[in-house]
Amino acid sequence: MSDRPKTPLLDTIHAPADLKRLSDAQLRQVADELRAETISAVSETGGHLGAGLGVVELTVALHSVFDTPRDKLIWDVSHQSYPHKILTGRRDRIRTLRQKGGLSGFTKRSESPYDPFGAAHSSTSISAALGFAVARDLGGSVETGLGEAIAVIGDGAMSAGMAFEAMNNAGHLNKRLFVILNDNEMSIAPPVGALSSYLSRLYAGEPFQEFKAAAKGAVSLLPEPFREGARRAKDMLKGMAVGGTLFEALGFSYIGPIDGHDLDQLLPVLRTVRARATGPMLIHVLTKKGKGYAPAERADDKGHATAKFDVVTGEQRKAPSNAPSYTSVFGRTLTAMAAEDPRICAVTAAMPGGTGLDLMAERYPSRVFDVGIAEQHGVTFSAALAAGGMRPFCTMYSTFLQRGYDQVVHDVAIQRLPVRFAIDRAGLVGADGATHAGSYDIAYLSNLPGFVVMAAADEAELTHMIATAAAHDDGPIAFRYPRGEGVGVTMPERGEVLEIGKGRMIREGSRVAILSYGTRLGEVMKACEALEARGVSPTVADARFAKPLDRDLILRLVAGHEALITIEEGAVGGFGSHVAQLLAGEGVFDHGLKFRSMVLPDIFIDQASPADMYDVAGLSAADIEAKVLEVMGVEVMGKRA
Amino acid sequence: MSDRPKTPLLDTIHAPADLKRLSDAQLRQVADELRAETISAVSETGGHLGAGLGVVELTVALHSVFDTPRDKLIWDVSHQSYPHKILTGRRDRIRTLRQKGGLSGFTKRSESPYDPFGAAHSSTSISAALGFAVARDLGGSVETGLGEAIAVIGDGAMSAGMAFEAMNNAGHLNKRLFVILNDNEMSIAPPVGALSSYLSRLYAGEPFQEFKAAAKGAVSLLPEPFREGARRAKDMLKGMAVGGTLFEALGFSYIGPIDGHDLDQLLPVLRTVRARATGPMLIHVLTKKGKGYAPAERADDKGHATAKFDVVTGEQRKAPSNAPSYTSVFGRTLTAMAAEDPRICAVTAAMPGGTGLDLMAERYPSRVFDVGIAEQHGVTFSAALAAGGMRPFCTMYSTFLQRGYDQVVHDVAIQRLPVRFAIDRAGLVGADGATHAGSYDIAYLSNLPGFVVMAAADEAELTHMIATAAAHDDGPIAFRYPRGEGVGVTMPERGEVLEIGKGRMIREGSRVAILSYGTRLGEVMKACEALEARGVSPTVADARFAKPLDRDLILRLVAGHEALITIEEGAVGGFGSHVAQLLAGEGVFDHGLKFRSMVLPDIFIDQASPADMYDVAGLSAADIEAKVLEVMGVEVMGKRA
Repeated sequence: MSDRPKTPLLDTIHAPADLKRLSDAQLRQVADELRAETISAVSETGGHLGAGLGVVELTVALHSVFDTPRDKLIWDVSHQSYPHKILTGRRDRIRTLRQKGGLSGFTKRSESPYDPFGAAHSSTSISAALGFAVARDLGGSVETGLGEAIAVIGDGAMSAGMAFEAMNNAGHLNKRLFVILNDNEMSIAPPVGALSSYLSRLYAGEPFQEFKAAAKGAVSLLPEPFREGARRAKDMLKGMAVGGTLFEALGFSYIGPIDGHDLDQLLPVLRTVRARATGPMLIHVLTKKGKGYAPAERADDKGHATAKFDVVTGEQRKAPSNAPSYTSVFGRTLTAMAAEDPRICAVTAAMPGGTGLDLMAERYPSRVFDVGIAEQHGVTFSAALAAGGMRPFCTMYSTFLQRGYDQVVHDVAIQRLPVRFAIDRAGLVGADGATHAGSYDIAYLSNLPGFVVMAAADEAELTHMIATAAAHDDGPIAFRYPRGEGVGVTMPERGEVLEIGKGRMIREGSRVAILSYGTRLGEVMKACEALEARGVSPTVADARFAKPLDRDLILRLVAGHEALITIEEGAVGGFGSHVAQLLAGEGVFDHGLKFRSMVLPDIFIDQASPADMYDVAGLSAADIEAKVLEVMGVEVMGKRA
Repeated sequence: MSDRPKTPLLDTIHAPADLKRLSDAQLRQVADELRAETISAVSETGGHLGAGLGVVELTVALHSVFDTPRDKLIWDVSHQSYPHKILTGRRDRIRTLRQKGGLSGFTKRSESPYDPFGAAHSSTSISAALGFAVARDLGGSVETGLGEAIAVIGDGAMSAGMAFEAMNNAGHLNKRLFVILNDNEMSIAPPVGALSSYLSRLYAGEPFQEFKAAAKGAVSLLPEPFREGARRAKDMLKGMAVGGTLFEALGFSYIGPIDGHDLDQLLPVLRTVRARATGPMLIHVLTKKGKGYAPAERADDKGHATAKFDVVTGEQRKAPSNAPSYTSVFGRTLTAMAAEDPRICAVTAAMPGGTGLDLMAERYPSRVFDVGIAEQHGVTFSAALAAGGMRPFCTMYSTFLQRGYDQVVHDVAIQRLPVRFAIDRAGLVGADGATHAGSYDIAYLSNLPGFVVMAAADEAELTHMIATAAAHDDGPIAFRYPRGEGVGVTMPERGEVLEIGKGRMIREGSRVAILSYGTRLGEVMKACEALEARGVSPTVADARFAKPLDRDLILRLVAGHEALITIEEGAVGGFGSHVAQLLAGEGVFDHGLKFRSMVLPDIFIDQASPADMYDVAGLSAADIEAKVLEVMGVEVMGKRA
């Protein structure tokens, strides 16, 4: 506690209502203390730092001007919501962020009435705000009441088509709502896309400086013109800026850009728009990601996501690692293969670092495409690259590929185009929690005709699968791998091209066969060690492919064992379901087979370490051991397992 | 043949290259003949008429100016591609459109090298064009060569976020490509959204008239200023129009609007941009859907989709129907319920007519929201309506709901918000073919925690499920129903609220139990009739729910029968897989059960009548009969079935 910042004024704020009695000068002090508290908390917990620091003043201003939780304040992505959580009654738990049993790293309806609409994926906030605005006008009723609708969305998130769809609809419905465009010229990576250039042009010239000067120099005068009517005030503010026609084309009134770290600009502008707005309004706010904490401001990613760190030095405390991460193995392997094959190219949706493609982008910048937060476009763009004779690797996190699902079906699968899907963060992911779990890709890809669907059991297998995907020109192919470090196996010189639809035997045992798909193989082997001690020796195979299934291997396992257990890091409907469908069709169940399919359970699992999450899921070594004993009818701890 | 139009010049066009030797005047004649041929063909086949008629001149102009198939011409949605098909070597088969074994109603890579990228869902064309442009610049190689990239996209399709994502990326990459905005102020329904109003403003004033006059009056002069350089020409054309800043904000050069039915405007503009463009260019073309065929022009939907019709009168030849369509039952039932419950509201993505919501929109316009072609936004908007205390029915075709899959997971399921998903066109759909099949919704919804997933066996069941959904405030709930007419059952006065997770017994038999999910129940009953004649009497139950499963019912069926067959109109991973998972977990397979799961096969099924498609799928009465006999080990036709 001795290291914690002094926050005398913040200590008196227990809910946003407490801000209402403060002067503007005191609000500035609250903001400073809130920044210090945010840095201190994240230094202990790790997490998203830069985004929260960028909106400290905005958070204070919004909560002091608007009337939350009656007014619905919706943070897009919501990794910038830590200061919001501190102000809304969760300060006492802020140092449990992203930990098991602690606060979520995102907004969450079940956590607080101040989180009216949770998020974690980007670009949903305007749709949500519009829904609340419409519900309000239709007489919808909720416990907290329905007041204003306010979305806070970053310029990166604004590049997603979904945000455009929502703007288009909001402009048409002409409902009163507020969109705060939090323009920090950063999503996670530096921004890409024409929209970003456009926004830069909006504040490239003198006008912003002038407005800033006017606002700073004559802040006491600002309310006066406002009294002359919203139209006049709007024109005045707009006249000082360059334009905003893009948003006006979509039916929004535009105000800005204003300095998002200057409460002397934020407060009067928000107070005015709150008093006067009629239809949808976009307020363009300029902020700096990582603002006010030098190590974050200096970092390339502006302190986007961080481990625990030392507040003074900014040095992050990461556990030393023995094995390379799957992500880095992917990045290195693909880059090496790109050197030999000019057809190899890669697509990422705003995740060059997260996917490991930054390495290839450095070496072969013309063959790596960061399309922005735009998975729909990214998938179809990849499909056309394939149609044009390239070998595209469409590289996305499992959970984000959901955004491009229809494009996977319609543009890739139906056309049988050889897009290579590199699916990172497959399975449970840890601190990011349920919203980032990659639970469904096995299911939603394996039932698409013509798809090849693989999962890597370890980092060496991953290199083979990258090579296999590159060589596969006959239709789409996908391979999944998890977040985090590999298991430390010896790495091959180069990946070998696997035979499509063939698994591999791992160990020969008896009575029970375990058919593993993906990285649960490590836990399966741990379980086998424990079982050996009991005199039980399962056979283990690595399926490698969920599609096409290795029919021969599966029927061989069935023929030689009384039980078959499948295991995967995915929801029901995936690998195990395809195996069951095969077995049923073959008539294997007619005469009896102890078949079990271990999958993710039918719950959303909250944040914890990945290992803890797999314990909750019932997919750890102990669970596998218990399952084997159960099918063998072995008594465990006095009762049937 | 005697009714067919005379088309002497069109008869000489066997491929687009044949257009190159024609004068502009002859091209006008080709266009007129092409229009007549299109009307004549669709009068025999039925299909999408209005869209094709709107782009007759554009089709002729594009194929005469560009060099297809080396230049990649990509029709968005591609229901407007019939004239294109006639010009590209498929005229001899144009009267087989949308029929079994005939031409697809959409572009299709496997059908012609002139279809470089197939479509059917909207808004993919700009992503595809960009992919081809990038592949070309990276040295990608395909059989036909890689030339220009041209996307033709309607104003409705432009409202989808995916198109915005592609524009944003194309503007950033600054690749040479052409986007033809085919602005007919119609998608299927009249346009909605702020973008549409914006486009109207672009040509609301004098300038368009001026340009039209200038172009008409002095068409021979037009090439001259073009010679003075692209910049000058661009400025000239732009100066004549009003603006186009929205597209310029996204990095495109903008030209237009021009009259898309006037080859004297189309040809010189396309020739010029082809000669001079450097980066991405948007050409804004105004057309009339249904142009040149009075019955289509007069129709509310501008002849969007039509049955076979009489060319002279325009009268459509529809088979008389005994039972109401599922869609109309949905529309009527929801409207009646909305009268009693002010919380009921509905969301459609540009399909008010197709979903039957037009009826409710007439009666309760403030509670029906057409969000445009914007499923991502539509789903999240619905989620927020639910969070705001409303009872939203998010009404989408199964295949289009794929566009909002991540939003279903992230915004609805994880937050456990009571959005009611009314899923129309579930299962195989007939003439629209594989791209419109609703094959995956059971699988991709049933593994989401907290979801209730239903399928209606007939139109009376549908009314019960609508009532059940309305009453279900504890989390998301979905119900699916197919395209086409119901089975003619007696309709209840009002829908009754079903018990969640409970199926119903249909007939008691012996030895074999069939557990049906959805509208295959009719075929199951037909199969039972045939089986009775053989002395076989299966038990039949209607599951109603894929989630939660009726565990008691299933275990009761298992206990009393030697075989259990599930059947559904969906791909593997859905209902049957969940039943298999339950049975495996319960240890039912340990001691033997003849279990079979009848699902859609692992192929994309081409257009035909729905009945024919289900034959191909192996899900018709005869297939069910054969499956029952097979599991009973009955010899059929001299061999084991």
